[in-house]
Amino acid sequence: MNAVETWLRTHRAAILEDLETFVRIPSVSTDPAYKGDVVRAAQFVAQKLTEAGLADAKVRPTEGHPVVTASWRGAPGKPTVLIYGHFDVQPPDPLEAWNTKPFEPEIRDGRLYGRGASDDKGPMLIPIKVAQAFLACNGALPVNLVFLFEGEEEVSSAHLEAFVAANQDYLAADFVLSADGAQWRADLPSVITGSRGICALEITVRGAGKDLHSGRHGGSVANPIQALAAILASLHDESGRVAVPGFYDAVVELPTSELNDIANLPWSEADYLNSIGASAGVGEAGYTLLQRNWVRPTLEFNGVSGGYAGPGKKTVIPSYAQAKLTCRLVPDQAPDVIARQIAGFVESRSIPGVAVDVKIETGGASPYAVPSDHLGLALAESVLAEVTEVSPIRVRMGATIPIGGIFKQVLGLDTIFFSFATSDEDYHAPNEFFRLSSLSNGLKAWAIYLARLGAASAG
Amino acid sequence: MNAVETWLRTHRAAILEDLETFVRIPSVSTDPAYKGDVVRAAQFVAQKLTEAGLADAKVRPTEGHPVVTASWRGAPGKPTVLIYGHFDVQPPDPLEAWNTKPFEPEIRDGRLYGRGASDDKGPMLIPIKVAQAFLACNGALPVNLVFLFEGEEEVSSAHLEAFVAANQDYLAADFVLSADGAQWRADLPSVITGSRGICALEITVRGAGKDLHSGRHGGSVANPIQALAAILASLHDESGRVAVPGFYDAVVELPTSELNDIANLPWSEADYLNSIGASAGVGEAGYTLLQRNWVRPTLEFNGVSGGYAGPGKKTVIPSYAQAKLTCRLVPDQAPDVIARQIAGFVESRSIPGVAVDVKIETGGASPYAVPSDHLGLALAESVLAEVTEVSPIRVRMGATIPIGGIFKQVLGLDTIFFSFATSDEDYHAPNEFFRLSSLSNGLKAWAIYLARLGAASAG
Repeated sequence: MNAVETWLRTHRAAILEDLETFVRIPSVSTDPAYKGDVVRAAQFVAQKLTEAGLADAKVRPTEGHPVVTASWRGAPGKPTVLIYGHFDVQPPDPLEAWNTKPFEPEIRDGRLYGRGASDDKGPMLIPIKVAQAFLACNGALPVNLVFLFEGEEEVSSAHLEAFVAANQDYLAADFVLSADGAQWRADLPSVITGSRGICALEITVRGAGKDLHSGRHGGSVANPIQALAAILASLHDESGRVAVPGFYDAVVELPTSELNDIANLPWSEADYLNSIGASAGVGEAGYTLLQRNWVRPTLEFNGVSGGYAGPGKKTVIPSYAQAKLTCRLVPDQAPDVIARQIAGFVESRSIPGVAVDVKIETGGASPYAVPSDHLGLALAESVLAEVTEVSPIRVRMGATIPIGGIFKQVLGLDTIFFSFATSDEDYHAPNEFFRLSSLSNGLKAWAIYLARLGAASAG
Repeated sequence: MNAVETWLRTHRAAILEDLETFVRIPSVSTDPAYKGDVVRAAQFVAQKLTEAGLADAKVRPTEGHPVVTASWRGAPGKPTVLIYGHFDVQPPDPLEAWNTKPFEPEIRDGRLYGRGASDDKGPMLIPIKVAQAFLACNGALPVNLVFLFEGEEEVSSAHLEAFVAANQDYLAADFVLSADGAQWRADLPSVITGSRGICALEITVRGAGKDLHSGRHGGSVANPIQALAAILASLHDESGRVAVPGFYDAVVELPTSELNDIANLPWSEADYLNSIGASAGVGEAGYTLLQRNWVRPTLEFNGVSGGYAGPGKKTVIPSYAQAKLTCRLVPDQAPDVIARQIAGFVESRSIPGVAVDVKIETGGASPYAVPSDHLGLALAESVLAEVTEVSPIRVRMGATIPIGGIFKQVLGLDTIFFSFATSDEDYHAPNEFFRLSSLSNGLKAWAIYLARLGAASAG
């Protein structure tokens, strides 16, 4: 251990340099214009794995952006850990809001600024470098490792499930250790024990065959905006619950003790609302804001459009109006089931003069929760406590990490989140950064984690 | 008369060419980007009046877009007619729905296609050319004429009232003859005996101070689209009536006989719905579609926007959402009173976590009705019967022509509508057109009207 830690300290400047080179590659997966850059990022990752001593590292194609795999299986009888991360990044816009250019990393105040530094290039580089340290110092790793890095996390891991299903033997492991899945706060170590799933729909309400003059026709034909408003207003009840029949049927209600754990966390609703500029919390009655964020499902409208939205007025009755919505799902809600329930409920509305059409978007993802007694989870907690000298808390994630559901459903594996990003690092916003202290802590923690996992299974 | 009619026939190709030149000017009054083009249209109109022989034709500024005036007062003892029209046009969007470009006029199948061809450039060019014909042939007009053309009809004649009030002497007349105010149908001549008024509002619902990630925050903060939908859904009741308290208080209920006249017109609800591609009529219970169009007030949504409207999904809770609405008003509803009632009703809603702001747009307009025994109306009916060989019917107008209210209130004048546009000419939609047969009929009818008015007053 000491040799490995020493190696990591000695090479820290070079590791940081590698991270900067990695951040310079604009691997934006949502925008086809960056397709070649996502491939370049994959090649960079494969090269770093090879340098680490993982001989079979390679870039592997999917129907979308490529993935990168590597493995080391030289510890028979020891556990096998599937390490996950992603090398694609969010789009950098709005560009004008960045203090320095998103793909020209810069160190300021102990932070590395740049798109992808925190999500997920910094965190995913850590296990590669830790493996390199073990192999350089000991010629061996304490456990068997399989690496799987994808280039489509920011587009809902669109082709990961197919790749995993087609490579089950190669990816076989005891559990997944994810370098993605940011910690909750910078000042309090945490482990994620679950993330919400997602499904997305688009509702289109069509009235007359063309836009109509609101004077000549107003009052006698259906107004699609009016019909859409009635539909949207019907999707929640007075208590803030989703009013779609069956929506809550599959929800596994948490035991009171777990709800209380969330309610008792050191977290201020007032500070939270202040931080986002909101005047009041709202939502499902009977739950705190944090409970609603973490363990309750939602139906949120993401966009609405129809008719004239420019300056001044235009006296038109539009021929159609549209709304986009997404639900966040909790165990055991299935994205396709929920999407069909909503579509059925909306389409069953009979509103004279309009046709209602609901499109279910692709890219749904299942919710996921780690079994609370998972040994990999306990190990993550003890290592975090040791490295940070603070007892970590267990948190849920309101957002969606599709891999939890994918690894569970396809490989039967649980996923332990062990990322050293923190959620304040603006990773879906301008001026994304990664704390250099998190890089140091992460290198140390991953080294301890793997060593201890190997030692435990030897006992 | 024969000389004048001959002149108009001989010059028909040149008149049509002038109209095409006129349509090429994108005088969109709602969009500040076209401000210079509205001025160019005014200059074009002044030039045509000058060419017609009206020596004092000029472009005159207002606080908004300019107006154009001209006069001929060489017939002492004869009536003076104030001729009205407008040279501004509706915005052309959605551009992709046009078969040919909106400001590149094209003749197909006896129609001139182009934005503004029907509303109101074609119809308003007619009295200018008729005046030119009289002056060219006779050196005089049969009655005194004052021309007033505005550039703000499509923005509710925002500054016309102030201009009229400031120029009462110049505009003094016996009545107004309007080249705007389309006929009801292409196959049945009609005269308009009233038009609905209008008021416009914009509702803005604001939630958090910035767009939020719908995973990390969904379920615990107010969604402005959801709040807006609830507000919009509350503005009508189940029977299709406007649910704003006081909305119907000032409505003068029509006598049953007039309602029956409307119900007995040769008009098919089924054909109407078919013509606009609507599957059913809707609206206020207890009235036919045509009664709702003509003599009942409305509240219609013209636009709604908020959050993401692009392709696919974006998991955002928008910081605000917005809706635009207009009401059509009937005698004696006052636009400012109704707008304040709606604003008060909406702002009185208390929705946690959002701020609701209602902006009353300028440019409200009063409803107007012509006295049923007006001599100018009877003359319009007889001339129409003569030119078209069909007895015209009396119709109301669902749309708004603010000038009725303005001329009545400021100058004490009634307005007779004598336009040769027809309401099927898509003038607030893509592919606006003006029938070339209407141009011919209009030139002939205006010539007869002015001649007969002059002759009648000589008797």
